[in-house]
Parts: sequence; structure tokens; C-alpha cells
Amino acid sequence: MKVAIIGSTGYGGVELIRILQQHPAVSLYTNHSSSQDGSLLTEGYPHLQSIIDQPLQAIDTKKIASEADLVFTATPSGISAKLVPELLKEGLKVIDLSGDYRLKNSKDYEQWYNKEAGDEHWLHEAVYGLTEWLETDLKDAKLVANPGCYPTAALLGLAPLIKDRLIDEKTIIIDAKTGVTGAGKNPSPMTHFSEMNDNLKIYKVNKHQHIPEIEQVLTSWDAAVGAITFSTHLLPMTRGIMTTMYANATEEVNIDQLHNLYKESYKDDYFVRIREKGIFPSTKEVYGSNFCDISIAYDERTNRIMIVSVIDNLMKGASGQAVQNMNKMLGMEETMGLEFVPVFP
Amino acid sequence: MKVAIIGSTGYGGVELIRILQQHPAVSLYTNHSSSQDGSLLTEGYPHLQSIIDQPLQAIDTKKIASEADLVFTATPSGISAKLVPELLKEGLKVIDLSGDYRLKNSKDYEQWYNKEAGDEHWLHEAVYGLTEWLETDLKDAKLVANPGCYPTAALLGLAPLIKDRLIDEKTIIIDAKTGVTGAGKNPSPMTHFSEMNDNLKIYKVNKHQHIPEIEQVLTSWDAAVGAITFSTHLLPMTRGIMTTMYANATEEVNIDQLHNLYKESYKDDYFVRIREKGIFPSTKEVYGSNFCDISIAYDERTNRIMIVSVIDNLMKGASGQAVQNMNKMLGMEETMGLEFVPVFP
Amino acid sequence: MKVAIIGSTGYGGVELIRILQQHPAVSLYTNHSSSQDGSLLTEGYPHLQSIIDQPLQAIDTKKIASEADLVFTATPSGISAKLVPELLKEGLKVIDLSGDYRLKNSKDYEQWYNKEAGDEHWLHEAVYGLTEWLETDLKDAKLVANPGCYPTAALLGLAPLIKDRLIDEKTIIIDAKTGVTGAGKNPSPMTHFSEMNDNLKIYKVNKHQHIPEIEQVLTSWDAAVGAITFSTHLLPMTRGIMTTMYANATEEVNIDQLHNLYKESYKDDYFVRIREKGIFPSTKEVYGSNFCDISIAYDERTNRIMIVSVIDNLMKGASGQAVQNMNKMLGMEETMGLEFVPVFP
Amino acid sequence: MKVAIIGSTGYGGVELIRILQQHPAVSLYTNHSSSQDGSLLTEGYPHLQSIIDQPLQAIDTKKIASEADLVFTATPSGISAKLVPELLKEGLKVIDLSGDYRLKNSKDYEQWYNKEAGDEHWLHEAVYGLTEWLETDLKDAKLVANPGCYPTAALLGLAPLIKDRLIDEKTIIIDAKTGVTGAGKNPSPMTHFSEMNDNLKIYKVNKHQHIPEIEQVLTSWDAAVGAITFSTHLLPMTRGIMTTMYANATEEVNIDQLHNLYKESYKDDYFVRIREKGIFPSTKEVYGSNFCDISIAYDERTNRIMIVSVIDNLMKGASGQAVQNMNKMLGMEETMGLEFVPVFP
Repeated sequence: MKVAIIGSTGYGGVELIRILQQHPAVSLYTNHSSSQDGSLLTEGYPHLQSIIDQPLQAIDTKKIASEADLVFTATPSGISAKLVPELLKEGLKVIDLSGDYRLKNSKDYEQWYNKEAGDEHWLHEAVYGLTEWLETDLKDAKLVANPGCYPTAALLGLAPLIKDRLIDEKTIIIDAKTGVTGAGKNPSPMTHFSEMNDNLKIYKVNKHQHIPEIEQVLTSWDAAVGAITFSTHLLPMTRGIMTTMYANATEEVNIDQLHNLYKESYKDDYFVRIREKGIFPSTKEVYGSNFCDISIAYDERTNRIMIVSVIDNLMKGASGQAVQNMNKMLGMEETMGLEFVPVFP
Repeated sequence: MKVAIIGSTGYGGVELIRILQQHPAVSLYTNHSSSQDGSLLTEGYPHLQSIIDQPLQAIDTKKIASEADLVFTATPSGISAKLVPELLKEGLKVIDLSGDYRLKNSKDYEQWYNKEAGDEHWLHEAVYGLTEWLETDLKDAKLVANPGCYPTAALLGLAPLIKDRLIDEKTIIIDAKTGVTGAGKNPSPMTHFSEMNDNLKIYKVNKHQHIPEIEQVLTSWDAAVGAITFSTHLLPMTRGIMTTMYANATEEVNIDQLHNLYKESYKDDYFVRIREKGIFPSTKEVYGSNFCDISIAYDERTNRIMIVSVIDNLMKGASGQAVQNMNKMLGMEETMGLEFVPVFP
Repeated sequence: MKVAIIGSTGYGGVELIRILQQHPAVSLYTNHSSSQDGSLLTEGYPHLQSIIDQPLQAIDTKKIASEADLVFTATPSGISAKLVPELLKEGLKVIDLSGDYRLKNSKDYEQWYNKEAGDEHWLHEAVYGLTEWLETDLKDAKLVANPGCYPTAALLGLAPLIKDRLIDEKTIIIDAKTGVTGAGKNPSPMTHFSEMNDNLKIYKVNKHQHIPEIEQVLTSWDAAVGAITFSTHLLPMTRGIMTTMYANATEEVNIDQLHNLYKESYKDDYFVRIREKGIFPSTKEVYGSNFCDISIAYDERTNRIMIVSVIDNLMKGASGQAVQNMNKMLGMEETMGLEFVPVFP
Repeated sequence: MKVAIIGSTGYGGVELIRILQQHPAVSLYTNHSSSQDGSLLTEGYPHLQSIIDQPLQAIDTKKIASEADLVFTATPSGISAKLVPELLKEGLKVIDLSGDYRLKNSKDYEQWYNKEAGDEHWLHEAVYGLTEWLETDLKDAKLVANPGCYPTAALLGLAPLIKDRLIDEKTIIIDAKTGVTGAGKNPSPMTHFSEMNDNLKIYKVNKHQHIPEIEQVLTSWDAAVGAITFSTHLLPMTRGIMTTMYANATEEVNIDQLHNLYKESYKDDYFVRIREKGIFPSTKEVYGSNFCDISIAYDERTNRIMIVSVIDNLMKGASGQAVQNMNKMLGMEETMGLEFVPVFP
């Protein structure tokens, strides 16, 4: 297998390199960047010294098509919208890590992203790559829209309850917390160490572009889901997302039943680990790995269910899931090259 | 004014020292500890070198009564239950920073704290010291139960909405986040740097002892409030609490109305700062100060109100509020000795 | 006393505000900025809400002279060089927090700062404001060059040994470590949280502009001091500097003698605290305060003396020392308004 | 290959698990612990859920010998002293990660560790496993004393200069900085998050047990090396060591010559990466990997050479190097199973 990465200079691209470098079925991968043709990745990422020595290449779709079978586009929002159809036209398979092909309705995209949406045909064709809950066989897919980091954590946590209609769809609240790599590579006042260290920030209140993404998927599972509440916090840590989710139970439930539901739902999914009853996951327990760890609680006093899920935002929340999808597109074991033990502590 | 601190070796006690050292109306204060009579505070707290040189004293209630007018008990839960009545018997005024005199119903205390409750007479007499919403004049109070850190942040944030009956009392969800000083001075696996750094933990799910404290106060304001959902997260930072709170609006509201309500509610309260519309506070913006900063948002899509409040857990969440209450008990300006500018960055 | 701050939008300026806000002898201070005339400080520093409400003013030297007695210039290097003489011409006293008036030799400045040096007359007139070792009475000074953060920590630590000729001047090595506020307010890749958190960087190897500053002062104390080794590390913390310093003893010494020398040297200096023998300071023990804590060790195996000093880089390393100098210039107690207890933890 | 880990509940043991889990030539490994026979590793290390499910086993040397070929002893100092000879007696090969078999002179051990030294025969037989500078073929070794974390970073940095006699042996100063995992798994006041976060501590001044270890190796390379200065600092980060080292040049040198020497010395060593001239490594650039990155500088002003080296203390500083040594003992490529790309950011 030969693959290409477009956008190697962002954190998603660099994490793809970390994974593919050790992937047994990828014989070659090349790195491309719009802005830094000819420069060395090691200038911005000296940790890659002796690992990646070839210079970054320009984004030449024909050349990429002649050398690779599949492309990861780890580009900022707005770039993939135009680039992806060009790559597909060359016969390449594409896994897009940006948000450009996730929202089926181009109006939603334009409203929440405030940019021009991607090609309507490909918006319709794109498979939303929440690997554990795929609705089509990826072997037939040409374009995978890789899910956002928050939606991955939220949807894996909510899926069993929504699919079993165990919660009141109008009561869903998702309180999400992320490490700072979620804000990307570019320095800004928000991510300046002096002001982010020992600090906790809430941002994009009621405006985060992952709101419509989560709603779209939940509604596809249960049409009664409409608007949800989703809030996002920036924490003084590098990696990791925790979503703490609340919803009212619609019928009498108990913790054993809920716990069994989750164990059963994910029994064949290597990367989703359900914690023992009463034990809740911390973000560091999945650091550097592709796991999503989930716990569930039920409070009889309020008849409210709480679900807690954690992921590494750069792995299961981005590049790890992208490679998991690649494995499926290419007919391989979904775990191949992804069995990283979490780096702890 | 002469005051004594019992429990000077904990973080609450040490923060009291930081404040009282600079308080213009406190001429003397003494430090007492059950376990370390005769030792020096500077052994555990070398930052106090040249500031506190006298050794720690034993807890001799008669001696304290002969030297001080007022005592802060910054002792662990379970100690104050017995100690406070002895101090009161000697004629001392007491501000108790532990949780022992907050819950009016001793059964609640025993259930949530799993310890023996304090004296029934004093449980009844104790004034709950949420300074901005006091229901009696502290000048007449002998015992103030100083609020918990989380309840302070949550109650200051919810008060205007609850008192104006603007939210559905059955939909209140409080997602709380704290820095690690909230877990106290004693080292434990949970607070071990190697495992807490770059990590986010959720703990005491549906079991936190601040749940009944918040419910008790909210119910006293609006009898329709019953059980609430309150969850607690431990973040890799030293100080700071943020509570992100959600509730459904009961009637048509808009953001201007809500914002004005908050500005109006706290217009005479120096330590509560309402942010401009659309601006949300970060915990570091109150670091080392007695401020509680609050923002409010309204989402028309879900008809849900969100309130965000931040405090320094050791200041407004403990020792700062305790001194604010002391000022009121002694008939002074509530801001005296407390006008610390936040330490930023 | 009326004072003005030029450069209020940087960290040095904001720390001056924190101090002056609580200073008993400063009745008024105004905030000035070259770039943000008319805007509000609270836009970049919301922690100042309700504390500083007036907008930033332009830098109009005549207007400042009509309103203030003394000015702090907390401006970037290169700005003060030209601005300071203009302020002095108006009869203002100036305390310059930049590096522009510290190096007596303009060629040194141009070599190490790579900028045009300040006015020769004022370079000569400026008093280097290392408060504990001043060589002239500040009451007569018009211009104080406030020392750099690293030089303050290093010079306070080395002074007793150098002045007593106890170390071989050719063996001085200063290994310095700083928190990230030392790099200022502007975001950059170096201070981006995602790459600075959980990381340790060494920077400006053999090129730091504080090298000639330290050498100039040491040489003025002991002409045998020439070039020293001084290295600088950036640590994942907000505030704090530690300098670990090494030098060979020139004669037989022992730890008691060294410890007594330090106790004696600083016995009248409130802000310098000598630790007990065998106890070494941590940076957090001076956090938010104007203290410099120092320890000394002697290793018989190598005949080498080690000195460890810590400061808060924004306090004793910048704005705290500046106010200490202001107090002296105005004939007040040097501790006035500066007796902050360290914020711990 | 079948291997056993004794001491799986410490950080060294857990890091061995992370490596061996992905090692292509290790078919089985078992986990042993003195204190927790029968309990699950996942109780203390939930990140291992679904990865390690079998319970911890007691330390039964005969049983281990019947099941494994090689044992890692990742036990605290003082335990290996007695345990290692018992394992060797059973015919097992042993890689000891404790300090018990590093110091050849038992008196040195007893002085610096304040414990009883190991068996004299095995002290003599043990091969010091600084992999890049091994003096015997590990294929013949029965016992490898795996180097300490600090000595690994220091010795790899100093070796080329010492071996080429380019520095004055009496001027060596090593200023070392470590992340908190270096202090191990047990919580203590020193490593309590509230007091370690945003803090920098210096510890064990002139008393660190790695001093004689570094001196022993340096002296074996160049008998003129005697006592060195080595100081240790604890930083608010999880992993990573940087050693900043200083020594006077003995003859005229220049930076090109020094840089070439280092490039040449390590040209066949995959895990040692020499940075380009003028570029210095940060600890995060080796996070989670087995690399040691090194830079060198020369200051003509002082005739002093500076070397900077960084490692991940749990990888190249402990378990990574241990597996590197295992590979060599078993006649495999030294890089096998160790080609982890650093986790960045």
C-alpha cells in the first residue's frame, strides 16, 4: 500500500506520520503541504529527525495519483472542499480529516463554518467514518469524511442509548473538555502558554461547528433528536477529550441493564473499552492510543443517565480513526498498525 | 481584632494566613494545629519564612478564648463537629470552613459524609455564610458555616434565576471542574503529579457531599427544587473552579433580559463581576482573588439557559469568603483586606 | 504620589498595576500604550474588570508630566532608548524596566540587543537598580535602569561571594531556568501551549542579552571577573526563575562560614531570605511575592560552591523591584506596598 | 522468546509492558510483584484494560525459570541485591533496572544508597548496559545492570569528549533536570500535584546516588576524572530528562570539529541523534521514544564546551534501554520493537 498525506505540517498530519511509520501494510507514504514545498518537516518537527528526511512536496494531484492509492487530507476547513474532488477525479481514495465533507446539508456547513461548502455530489457520496457504527462497507467507499474529535467521543458514548430509545431526546446535554492540541498548531493568545497554563476556558458557547455534526448523526439514528446542548472547554493539557453527557431516562432503568447494554454493544469493538461499574475513565488512560473508554452511571434521585467517554483527540479523535478507516477501506483488520498501548503515565 | 486559626497546616488555613497577614483590622492572629503542636509552620510551608515565625500551638479552647475574639476552624470534616461547640461555649465567635455545620439535617450529613453530625442546637443556629445572599445579619451570628467551594460557585451562578423562577427546577445540571488544591494537602494516588498532570479525571460520580448542600440552599429559595445533577472533575491546575450550569427556561426569555437580571442582582456586590454579553470567564481571571465572575447564555434552539461561574477555590471558595464573613460579623466593610487583584498571568 | 505606567499592556505593566492598585502611597496612576490608545485594558486582561475602567491613553510626554511625578517605562527593548530622554526632559523621574539603560557601554548594547543604544548621557547617569546593592542614594536619581529578571536572581546569589573574593572568578557558571511569562505576552511557536506543556527547552545558547548585564555588574564588584557562562532554559510553568550557580572556592571554606556570610550580608534586607543549611528553595515559594530566596552548598569532594536563588520573574525580577526602587526614590520604606505573602500553593 | 517482568506495578515495569506488548520477538511475558500477588494490574493501571488481563503472580524463581528465558527486575533499590542472584542461580538471564548492580565497589553502594550491597561475585560479573558504549558482547552476559536515567543522558553526552581527552576532567559540571515520573509511583509531598505544578525544585544536592555511577563510568574511560559536580532538579512535567553539561576545553577547539566528532561517534547508533549546529533539543522531542538527542556548543569567550542531551527517562533512561540490551543479549537487532516515533506534541 502506498499512501499520501496532504497537510503533513499540522498536528493531524504529524500524528498520521507517527502511525503510518509503524504500520505493517503501508510500504510508502509521502508528505505534501501547500505552503512549504521543498522545506523539511524536521524544521517545525525536530522529533522527526532521522525518521522523515525527504522534503515536503507540493500538492500535485496527478503526481500523487501516480504514486499513491489513497490520500489523507489533513487540511484546514475550507481547503478540502475544493481539493477533495480533484483528488477523487484522479481515481484516488480519500480520507478527509477536515470538517468539509461531514455535513450533508451544504447550508448547515455554510452557516456553522462560514465558508463555502464542498461539492454537492461528494457531500452526498461521502461516508461518515465513525468506524464502530458505519452504515456501509468502506471497501466500496471512495471518500470517507473522518469524524470530528468531539463528535467521535460524544457519539460513541450516546449510540447505545439512542439506538435503544432509552433517553428523552430533548434532554441531551454534552459538556465537553479538550486538551489544547484540539486548537491546532498555530499560536494564538488563546493558546499562549502563560495564559493557558493553570487555566480553564470555555469557548464558542452555542457556536461550535461540531454541534450540527453531532445532531446530524444522532438524528439519523433517531429522528426525534433535534437540537442538543453541546459546550466546549479548553483545559491545560496537551491531548485528551472527555465528554460528560446527561439525559433523562425514558423508562425505568437500572445500572446493571445499562452496563450490560454497553458491554454488549461494543463487545466486538477492540477500540471501545467499557469500564467496570462505578469506575470512570481519565483522559490519560487513552493517551497516544486509539481507544475510546466509556462509563455509564444512573442516578435514581433525578432519573438521569450520565455517560462519560474519553479519547485522545489526535488518535481516535482524528488520525487514529482515519487509519482505522483506511484499514477497512483496504479490506484489512481494523486494528492493524493501531495497537498502541496508551502512554502512561 | 484578634483572631485564631485552627487548622493552619491545611491549604484553607494557609490561605487565611495569606489574607490576615495583610488585613488592616486584624492586629494579631495565632495558629493552632491538633497534630503539630510546637513545630514550625515553615517546615511544611517554607514560603512563610520570616512571615510566621512563632511555633504552632495546641488547641486549648480556654487559652484561645483568652486571646482571641473569633476563631476560624479550617479543620477536616468530622473534627469541627465536636470542636466548634466547645469554642462557642467559651464565648468565641466561630467561622467554620469544614462541612460540619452546613447541612441542617443531621441525617443528610451522616449519609453523605459518613461521619457523626455536629450538635443539633448549633446545626440549627449556624448561619450559612454565602455572603452575597445572607438571610440574617451576621453581626448577630455566633457561628457561620462557611460554604463549600463548589456550592459557592454554583449558588452565586444560579441564585438570580431561581429567585426569579425563570428555570424549570427539575432540569438543573451542574458540571463542575476544579483545580487540585480542592483535594487538599495530603498526597494520594489521585493527586500524584505524574498521573494528574496532563490528565482529566471525573470523581465521586453522584456521590459528592456538596450535592445536598447545594440542594438545601436552592430548595430554601424555591421549594420546587428537589434533586439536582452535580458532577465533579479534577483538572491539571492548582487553583480554580468553573461551574457550567444548564437549565431549561420556563418562559420566553432573551439574553438582554437575563444579562440585565444578573447585572442588577449583583450591582452592589463588589466580589461578583458579571461579564459582558458573549464574553465568558476563565478561572485564571480570578486567581488569588475573592472574585466570582459570571456569564450567562441563552440558546433559542434548545430553550436552554447556560450559566458559567468561576472562583478561586481557596479564596471565594474558602478562606476569602470566610474573611468576608468575618468582616460582616465584626461590622466592617465586607471588602476590607480582600481587595486582591487577581494574579495574572 | 501620582505615577504613570507606559506599556501597561505587557506583563510587566500589568504586574505594576497589581502592585500599585494596593500601594498606600500611590494615589493615582494612569496607563499608557503606544498602540492601543483609547481601548480598554480589560479587553486583553478581563481579570481587571471593575478594577481598571478608564481607557488606555496615548503616550503624550507633556500630558504625563503635568499629571504624574514618576513614570515606569515597561516597554520593549528599543522603545525606551528614545522615549526615556523625552520623559526626563519633562522633569519626570523614570524607572525603566526595559534593557535599554542597563548596559553602560553602548557598543555592548548594540552587539547583544542588535538595536540602537540609548542616549550616552543617560546611559551614564542611569542608576542600576539592584535595590539591595545600590551604590548611590536613589533619592538623587532621575533615571533607574531596573535590572533584568535573570540578572536579579544571579547577582543577589553571587554578590556575597564575589565581594568577599571567595570564588575563582574564571569558574562561574550560571544555569538559569525560567517560567514562560519571561518570554512576554506575544504568542509564538516557542510558547504555544501544545508544544511547551510537558516540555523543557534551552534557548539563546551563549547569546542571551543578560550575559553582558551580569558581567558588567560582577566586574564592577571585582575586576577579575571577565566572561562568565550563563545558560537559559524555558520550563512549563507560568512564573518563577531559579538560578543554579557553580564556582570553585579559592580558599578553604566550610558551609557554616558560607551560610553565616549570607545571613549577615542580607540581614537588613526584608526581601532576601536565606534558607536554613541543607534546605533549598523552590520557585513556588516566592510566587506572586517580591522575595528572593537563596541557599548555598559546598562540596568538599570538588571544592565547589553552589548557590541557588529563586524569584518571581514578574515581581522581584521586574515590577516588584521597580516599585521597591520607586519607594527608595521617593524616600519611603522600601517594603511599602510590597509585603505580598507568596501565593502558595 | 519468553520473558518475565518482576516489579510490574512500578513505572519501569509498566513501561516495559508497553514495549514488550508490541515487540515482534517476544511471544510471552508474565508479570510479577512481591506485594500484589493475585491482584490485577488494571486496578492501578486502568489504561491496560483489555491488554493485560491475567492477574499478577508471586515471585517464584523456580516457576519463572521454568517459563521464561530472561527476567527484567524493575524493583526498588535494595530488593534486587538479594533477588538477582537467586534468579541467576536458576539459569535465567537478568536485566536489572534497579541501581543494585551498577556500582562495582560495594562500599560506594552502601555509602550512597544506605543499603546493603549485592553479591560481590555478581557485582563483578554484571555488565553495565550503556548500550552504545558496551565494552563486552552482551550475548555472553548473564546479568546486565541497566544504567540509571540521569547517567544515561550524561554519559552519552560526555563520552566523545572524554574519550578524546578534549576537556579538563576537573571542570565537569552536570546540571540535570527531570520530569516527575523519575520520582516513581509512590505519592509524596514532593510530588503532590498542588505543590509540584507550576513549581521547580532542586533536590538531593550533592547527595544523589547517580553521582558515583557517573564517576565510575567516566573514570573507567579516563582515569583523570575524579569527583564531578552533578545537580538534580524536579520540573513540572511528566517525562523527560535534560542534562546541561559544562567543561573547559583543554586545547583549541572549534564548533565544526566538535560537531563532527559527535556525528562520527554516533553514526552507527540509531537511537542517538546529533542535532544540527546551533539547534538544541527539547525533552518533548523524544517523548515516548528511545532516542537520546544531543547538541554541543562552544563559547570562545570562556573556552567552555557545553553539551545538552535529552531522553525520555522511562524509555532510554530505563525500560527502552533495557529492551535494547535484551535485544543484544539475544542476538537480535538492537532496534527491534523499539522504533517508536516520539509522541509529539
